[in-house]
Amino acid sequence: MMSASLSASPSALSYAIIGTGAIGGYYGSRLQQGGCEVHFLLRSDYEQVKNSGLVIESIDGDFVLPRVNAYCRAADIPPVDVAIVALKTTRNHQLMDLLPKLKPGGAILSLQNGLGIESAIARQLTENNRPVPSILGGLCFICSNKVGSGHFRHLDYGRILLGAHSLDHQPCLPTSLMESITADFSRGPVEIAMTDDLPMARWRKLVWNVPYNGLSVVLDATTAEMMGNEDVRSLITTLMQEVVSVANVWGEKTSPGAHRTLSSDVIDQMLAHTDEMSDYRTSMKIDYDEKRPLEIEAILGNPIQAAQALSLPVPAMTMLYQQLSFLDAKLQR
Amino acid sequence: MMSASLSASPSALSYAIIGTGAIGGYYGSRLQQGGCEVHFLLRSDYEQVKNSGLVIESIDGDFVLPRVNAYCRAADIPPVDVAIVALKTTRNHQLMDLLPKLKPGGAILSLQNGLGIESAIARQLTENNRPVPSILGGLCFICSNKVGSGHFRHLDYGRILLGAHSLDHQPCLPTSLMESITADFSRGPVEIAMTDDLPMARWRKLVWNVPYNGLSVVLDATTAEMMGNEDVRSLITTLMQEVVSVANVWGEKTSPGAHRTLSSDVIDQMLAHTDEMSDYRTSMKIDYDEKRPLEIEAILGNPIQAAQALSLPVPAMTMLYQQLSFLDAKLQR
Repeated sequence: MMSASLSASPSALSYAIIGTGAIGGYYGSRLQQGGCEVHFLLRSDYEQVKNSGLVIESIDGDFVLPRVNAYCRAADIPPVDVAIVALKTTRNHQLMDLLPKLKPGGAILSLQNGLGIESAIARQLTENNRPVPSILGGLCFICSNKVGSGHFRHLDYGRILLGAHSLDHQPCLPTSLMESITADFSRGPVEIAMTDDLPMARWRKLVWNVPYNGLSVVLDATTAEMMGNEDVRSLITTLMQEVVSVANVWGEKTSPGAHRTLSSDVIDQMLAHTDEMSDYRTSMKIDYDEKRPLEIEAILGNPIQAAQALSLPVPAMTMLYQQLSFLDAKLQR
Repeated sequence: MMSASLSASPSALSYAIIGTGAIGGYYGSRLQQGGCEVHFLLRSDYEQVKNSGLVIESIDGDFVLPRVNAYCRAADIPPVDVAIVALKTTRNHQLMDLLPKLKPGGAILSLQNGLGIESAIARQLTENNRPVPSILGGLCFICSNKVGSGHFRHLDYGRILLGAHSLDHQPCLPTSLMESITADFSRGPVEIAMTDDLPMARWRKLVWNVPYNGLSVVLDATTAEMMGNEDVRSLITTLMQEVVSVANVWGEKTSPGAHRTLSSDVIDQMLAHTDEMSDYRTSMKIDYDEKRPLEIEAILGNPIQAAQALSLPVPAMTMLYQQLSFLDAKLQR
């Protein structure tokens, strides 16, 4: 079934893309463009993509993959080295039915937002009496949208920060598999780096995602609209401070004395960065506008649970969680 | 100019209604119906009301006042015993141009929502080198809307709680003027009672107004929608707790040892009462939907300032204030 154009570089790994949306569609296409064997799992876009492939408009240059390996059932995907989970976290309860077989030594790589993602995947596998492979997390710093069936638009950025999940949440050195993955993405080309502290990297990303994703929905606003209002800037800062506080206490509690903290200027950096960014509708706002379930648990619920476990009050995050839960419930009715 | 039908009961006071909206239109009509001399100050509805009077649909029975004293300039209103301020608080900066002359011993009665209303009126008068008369506050527990020019709909409730403003914010006994006002409203008929503690009564009303008015705008929701969601019920309770805490500390600080506190079951009472109420769109939500400025300062800003003066953190009220300020600014652009 694979044509010559789909054959992989000899050194490259094979990948399955679980969820061919704005993230999975873009990065999977980059991996295939870089010479990897890639298998795309799709739902409604299956027929279109099977027949016509994928179209990527990108600030780094448009490209088309006229033929891709498309599947509508995970069981039909051949064993791969890396199963990339690019579903919305709100679909993770379906994950056990969507994961393909892995080759020996293979890994699951979640490109999802939020906290506790890898632990939840490991827990699901264990509860279903399935072997738990290496689980990796990739934080995607990208503005990318799906604009049609098999059609994606890469608007800005694109960097991935790759790290490994460890059961005890301690920092851990990159593995050779992670180095191979890094090489594959780099050929895409995708800018990619490795971190030895995936949990703290996830906390750092939450410093941005909690205020901007959450408030963009509640206030029906883009990043520029929020940054242009002093009251909202102040509220954004409050929310960021709560995330940073919990992250730093979590880091100290998990690794006493190891100085696992976010940099003291992380908030100033995030604010300055967002001031410089072109105006942006957040992923949660896009989900809301498209009437899709919101990733409230991954982005707010899990960090709030972490705060509660540490007896840290997070009143602004809690209020944002409650407001989003109401709006989400209203939307899904 | 006054016809026989507009002549007052001999014992009744004379009134000016400053702001003939949902509150002023309804209560002014009741006073006139009860036999008082009433003068209505109007803006856009002046011609209509001057020619055709006022129409009240009320759960207690509809009635029409075919002739009323209508004015478009405060200077044309003859001196009255009581100037009733029924403007939105967002228009209070115009108040010095809208107040009529008072008869000797007359009073200003604000029927507005929020905290610090009477103090702000007194301050404005002083700053403008005008004499400061007795200032009274009336808390209106009513569902009433303006449905057209000179046309009001009284949907539910209607009770007024009347109290006097004192410079030192201490409780004070009802005056004979207040008793006369009470008699006039009662003939309306309007259910009316007096309190010797207007500030604490205002705090008590805020326990309802802060969460329901504020969240109804941010969440685009009616009271029943909010009460039907566990997350919002929890958030409402949090906001109520903040108001109650500040109120009680304020009461103790203002009158040490006097046990000026809200009843301990005020939150349970408010929640139960709202569960029983018919579904309701709050006044702030109506303002928002009609693209009118929101009464954020009176209902949230002033209580937050009171909390800050007492060094009490009110994170949920602060966040709600910030969110409403953003939405209000967006609306007014």
